[in-house]
Amino acid sequence: MDFSLSPELATLKDEVEAFVRHEVIPYEYDPRWTEHGPTDELRKELNGKAKAANLLAVHVAEEFGGRDLSHFEKAIVFEAAGYSMLGPVAIHCQAPDEGNIHLLQEIATPAQKEKFLRPLATAETRSCFAMTEPSPGAGSDPSALSTTAKPDGNGWVINGRKWLITGAQGAAFSIIMARTGDGPGDATMFLKELPDPTFNYARSLDTLDSSFMGGHGVIDIENLKVSGDDVLGEVGKGFRYAQIRLAPARLTHCMRWLGAARRAHVIATEYARERQAFGKPLGEHQGVSFMLADNEMDIYTSRLAIWRTAWSLDQGERASSESSMAKVICSEAIWRVVDRSMQILGGLGLTRDTMVERIFRDVRAFRIYDGPSEVHRWALGRRIVENKFRC
Amino acid sequence: MDFSLSPELATLKDEVEAFVRHEVIPYEYDPRWTEHGPTDELRKELNGKAKAANLLAVHVAEEFGGRDLSHFEKAIVFEAAGYSMLGPVAIHCQAPDEGNIHLLQEIATPAQKEKFLRPLATAETRSCFAMTEPSPGAGSDPSALSTTAKPDGNGWVINGRKWLITGAQGAAFSIIMARTGDGPGDATMFLKELPDPTFNYARSLDTLDSSFMGGHGVIDIENLKVSGDDVLGEVGKGFRYAQIRLAPARLTHCMRWLGAARRAHVIATEYARERQAFGKPLGEHQGVSFMLADNEMDIYTSRLAIWRTAWSLDQGERASSESSMAKVICSEAIWRVVDRSMQILGGLGLTRDTMVERIFRDVRAFRIYDGPSEVHRWALGRRIVENKFRC
Amino acid sequence: MDFSLSPELATLKDEVEAFVRHEVIPYEYDPRWTEHGPTDELRKELNGKAKAANLLAVHVAEEFGGRDLSHFEKAIVFEAAGYSMLGPVAIHCQAPDEGNIHLLQEIATPAQKEKFLRPLATAETRSCFAMTEPSPGAGSDPSALSTTAKPDGNGWVINGRKWLITGAQGAAFSIIMARTGDGPGDATMFLKELPDPTFNYARSLDTLDSSFMGGHGVIDIENLKVSGDDVLGEVGKGFRYAQIRLAPARLTHCMRWLGAARRAHVIATEYARERQAFGKPLGEHQGVSFMLADNEMDIYTSRLAIWRTAWSLDQGERASSESSMAKVICSEAIWRVVDRSMQILGGLGLTRDTMVERIFRDVRAFRIYDGPSEVHRWALGRRIVENKFRC
Amino acid sequence: MDFSLSPELATLKDEVEAFVRHEVIPYEYDPRWTEHGPTDELRKELNGKAKAANLLAVHVAEEFGGRDLSHFEKAIVFEAAGYSMLGPVAIHCQAPDEGNIHLLQEIATPAQKEKFLRPLATAETRSCFAMTEPSPGAGSDPSALSTTAKPDGNGWVINGRKWLITGAQGAAFSIIMARTGDGPGDATMFLKELPDPTFNYARSLDTLDSSFMGGHGVIDIENLKVSGDDVLGEVGKGFRYAQIRLAPARLTHCMRWLGAARRAHVIATEYARERQAFGKPLGEHQGVSFMLADNEMDIYTSRLAIWRTAWSLDQGERASSESSMAKVICSEAIWRVVDRSMQILGGLGLTRDTMVERIFRDVRAFRIYDGPSEVHRWALGRRIVENKFRC
Repeated sequence: MDFSLSPELATLKDEVEAFVRHEVIPYEYDPRWTEHGPTDELRKELNGKAKAANLLAVHVAEEFGGRDLSHFEKAIVFEAAGYSMLGPVAIHCQAPDEGNIHLLQEIATPAQKEKFLRPLATAETRSCFAMTEPSPGAGSDPSALSTTAKPDGNGWVINGRKWLITGAQGAAFSIIMARTGDGPGDATMFLKELPDPTFNYARSLDTLDSSFMGGHGVIDIENLKVSGDDVLGEVGKGFRYAQIRLAPARLTHCMRWLGAARRAHVIATEYARERQAFGKPLGEHQGVSFMLADNEMDIYTSRLAIWRTAWSLDQGERASSESSMAKVICSEAIWRVVDRSMQILGGLGLTRDTMVERIFRDVRAFRIYDGPSEVHRWALGRRIVENKFRC
Repeated sequence: MDFSLSPELATLKDEVEAFVRHEVIPYEYDPRWTEHGPTDELRKELNGKAKAANLLAVHVAEEFGGRDLSHFEKAIVFEAAGYSMLGPVAIHCQAPDEGNIHLLQEIATPAQKEKFLRPLATAETRSCFAMTEPSPGAGSDPSALSTTAKPDGNGWVINGRKWLITGAQGAAFSIIMARTGDGPGDATMFLKELPDPTFNYARSLDTLDSSFMGGHGVIDIENLKVSGDDVLGEVGKGFRYAQIRLAPARLTHCMRWLGAARRAHVIATEYARERQAFGKPLGEHQGVSFMLADNEMDIYTSRLAIWRTAWSLDQGERASSESSMAKVICSEAIWRVVDRSMQILGGLGLTRDTMVERIFRDVRAFRIYDGPSEVHRWALGRRIVENKFRC
Repeated sequence: MDFSLSPELATLKDEVEAFVRHEVIPYEYDPRWTEHGPTDELRKELNGKAKAANLLAVHVAEEFGGRDLSHFEKAIVFEAAGYSMLGPVAIHCQAPDEGNIHLLQEIATPAQKEKFLRPLATAETRSCFAMTEPSPGAGSDPSALSTTAKPDGNGWVINGRKWLITGAQGAAFSIIMARTGDGPGDATMFLKELPDPTFNYARSLDTLDSSFMGGHGVIDIENLKVSGDDVLGEVGKGFRYAQIRLAPARLTHCMRWLGAARRAHVIATEYARERQAFGKPLGEHQGVSFMLADNEMDIYTSRLAIWRTAWSLDQGERASSESSMAKVICSEAIWRVVDRSMQILGGLGLTRDTMVERIFRDVRAFRIYDGPSEVHRWALGRRIVENKFRC
Repeated sequence: MDFSLSPELATLKDEVEAFVRHEVIPYEYDPRWTEHGPTDELRKELNGKAKAANLLAVHVAEEFGGRDLSHFEKAIVFEAAGYSMLGPVAIHCQAPDEGNIHLLQEIATPAQKEKFLRPLATAETRSCFAMTEPSPGAGSDPSALSTTAKPDGNGWVINGRKWLITGAQGAAFSIIMARTGDGPGDATMFLKELPDPTFNYARSLDTLDSSFMGGHGVIDIENLKVSGDDVLGEVGKGFRYAQIRLAPARLTHCMRWLGAARRAHVIATEYARERQAFGKPLGEHQGVSFMLADNEMDIYTSRLAIWRTAWSLDQGERASSESSMAKVICSEAIWRVVDRSMQILGGLGLTRDTMVERIFRDVRAFRIYDGPSEVHRWALGRRIVENKFRC
């Protein structure tokens, strides 16, 4: 049992932290960080800074110029990047691209890798993942998937409506999940270059969160055609691949947002040291200092849960239970940290004069994205009752 | 002991509910409801609807055309109005005007009433209340007040910086709190017509909440002059008047936002009945139905706490403890209701496709406005320990 | 709307409070208050004190010497009695007798009233209510009732096992719930004088709580015979009567234990005033004073929820939703109050040197007795989803 | 970073688990486990079983026959032992002896080790630690220490009252903390063989918990004399040694009680699988399965916090912050686990028919022993505000 970092990893952590502090944070009030996320122009500028610092896409496979980081190494790097919500954009480890890169590395054909993955992994392009649908389609219950792909010559023709699709605006391609059979599990993933008129961007959703590039959109898929070469992996294995993508993708959300929570906590701590109230610094009132203590404990347990899950994944395990637990533990603990930080800041916390307001809005969404807490609790509970819970 | 409404009050409640449902809710996606609150144009239009329904400013004194509602009657009417966050704007019981009307009714001179109160009470104008200051000035601890008013001939000259001043943009006048002596309690309230260059609107704050008209601004007060006639009440009694204003003002916040919480709960309930997941309606999963039950319990206890405090105020008591308890109980329970409602809605809850997203942002602020929970808990705890808590 | 007490009720409240303080509390370290509750000898002695104070069974019908208190009046009296856990024993409003008196007043025949109710209502005897069964029988789900009553001549013969039967040891009679048909709702209540060898007291359960007279026992019912005259109410209406009994019985639990919670809070408050730590009284540390404030708020909302439900019952309503809400709100709020009080007392709170340790153990049980929180939340949630929730 | 166990440690874990299951659990309803803890006769019998299994005092230094376990190894072994609350008694790693052994190994002289430590480390004897005092003496705030030791020839004479002294009844010796100067930190530890009339056992406290041997007593120290040879460590360093003892002692409490929490969870899980309610097993209701999921998450984070702190201690660090965080995180999470387990069991959980009732009572005390949560939160908060928090 060992909780230490290798010297190389400690160095990389320091580099990312310094990069975020000196190169990324100065951009946080750049008007190109809109309510629908940073613009591509801003992204390109930040990517350039990261490239200069030798940190762009540091996590991807070596064949794409990265260092092929393990899950544990990602835990260190992504938390450090997340200290600014622009950090993951800058080093190109943001969702949904990071999860798409992971999935394509695992299951794409060599040709697909050249066509879709290489430009994505090197931050030339962005991508999206079109699975979620509006009611009554696939949401927390993916088996309600209603978008269909029908065979059409050598290829397929896809119809349906997708919803809350992150980053669709400006993506170079989409992974599209569609039903290819009548059974509950008959789904397939397809790759489609964008923009394309049959992948019709109906509208942008106004959402509470604001850090995802391209925002979240509604897509009408109308007679969209893909060739057989654009099937990702095998026909009928869409849900299995979704699991391959989701378990680590959930965990990288935890990593990035843990960094954001630390940021909120640091801002609140500094304020608590300086702001005077009732004859002494705010932080010397127990009502405030207890909140700071709870923040540190929530950050601590979140990090431990992330590391433990990353370790399991690095052992080659599926880590379903660990991954679900990490999602629930982190999304809720991070939420508490940011909510307390806002409370400590008082009126200031409600304004965009600090980053806490923006972080607050993002982390609320995290309790819903990638499976709301209730779905994970249910899955965990069922495993426990059925004596299948191992951890 | 009696929890029933008089027939007249029950009728008024029905009228307000119907008005909100039929006349106000249709405006909720009107673009004139901006991120910095509804515009004055929208307000005027809504006020017109309320006037036609004979509900405009129904709570104010009879001399200004109202029905001089008791605190308990306000509890019924304002909750009903709050069912849409535009409802209080429409019937003109929104903050800070409602509290300013209350205060001016209590302590303004006849001349001040004609000049400032009558147009405000009849919804011709809006107003603001300039007390809060940026660090290191008056925040949760009002005794840190740093704005000063110095005698100047027959009048006063005021200097200082105010911050998070709600509705300053577009207000016809401001109540200004300033220090008029060296003692910790030496403060005075002044009235000042606006706009005025010495009450300089430095900038609008971007805030989490978005329902207050005129948003929240930063004001630089530079050599602002007021005559002796514009002192509100007596010199040196500013903090005492602040208490007269705050106890009921806090309670009317509870009333209005309880209505908003009910709205969020109703939206979530309807969704839980319709949305299918895992083979049955969402609401038939205990994980969801327990949240709905908790919502109803939080709404129920909030309403009871409001009614109980209103009853004490109607008995002529100061009700300091009841008012502090109501603020903490309601702001936290309402928050939980809206947070759960958002969680039930899943991804939909994060979007502005329902009103829950906007309500969520407003009610988070309520845990901070008018004294954060921590300040009220502290005040209550101190009274308990000093054996001064009566309730 | 009115929260005031009539002068008569205020006087009665004062009398009960004084009685508990001066006559009951001195008995709290009497060794006759055992781990299985107060002995009958102790009960008789306390009843004598109550009789002398003209407070014995003050709540029962006038024909049995009481004042026929309304539910609201009971709320005032029972809370005052509960300030000592021996108070309800003293004035004879303890469970399960209080609920049995209520039920018999409602549905017993005149003959049954003379035989069973009069001695019970006048505190000559005690009784029990034999419904709960061990797994797989009736617990939270009463429809699992497995004890059967078969017709036998003019009467019935009953067989089954009952469990967690409060007060069976020493009871003069039992109400027995048994299945009298194959349908899920086919149950009937019977009256049986005790002791009787066919109502075999198998053993006493050692339980966390310790305030119920006679403790909680396991009963083997073996060929127990009752005549047709001993059917309580009508055959087949057992579950309906259980509801008649349970809704108010749950509420009287809330009343009594609210008194106990107040007691714990008062003990903790006095300690917080006196005990010095880190240079000042414990209660001047916010970590403690916030807990005291939360205690008062929990007591306040519990009382409001009780009063509101009592008012509904006094209007002649079934008040199912109010009753379920009161059970959940009170059992959980009271629990928090007592848990916080114990925490404030530190090591002292863990010892029987104060009453808090004993109260703590009783109120934990309250979250389970008369329907655990989960069953009530479920019932409430179902009503909300089915649009049957009215309040 | 590595979360794996060495093969030797995994084997030891299996051995302890099997020992507890087969040899210890059968004693759980032995009447010699009294309300004031297991008797010495029972202890001896259990120690004999442990010796036969080669597990007695496995953690102590090799010179006393143990394996000199690291903190991490203790985490594994003590959690396994704690699965029965008699397990730590059996293998002799219970409080306060385990902490006393640790302290004496660190600072006792060779002669003191032979006289006091060897018999203790080999489970021939038991011991106690006399620090806590009744109000107004040393409690959460040790600086209020009022017991005094005055120089007396070559030795010392001690006077004072100690309170809540665990295991004093039957201890072979006590470590006594007494004030030896006027400064706030002037305290010294002394060793005293027992029984001794000047260390007068005034009475046993009746406490909520029931697993500590010898219970908790009140001690009147009257002119107790010790020689200079019986000073433990150096004069004036008592508080420093208390810290040496407390940080790991707190952590071993976490380890043992985590085992107890797991036990409660397993009992609740098995019940949830078997008990039918409303047409299906209890555990298939989300209201219950969510509780089971939360239990596993609380167990998981508690274990991670323990391991992380143990690792720091094994690196030779003081680990003050980690130790405080582990105490708060574990005592509160363990508490929630056992409280939920009791709730799932319903009425059964309130009875001693399962071990949960007894575990529940013990773990409530854990939130107070060794520094209540509030003291640790305060210490953590202060370090954060003073920028001294490192972790």
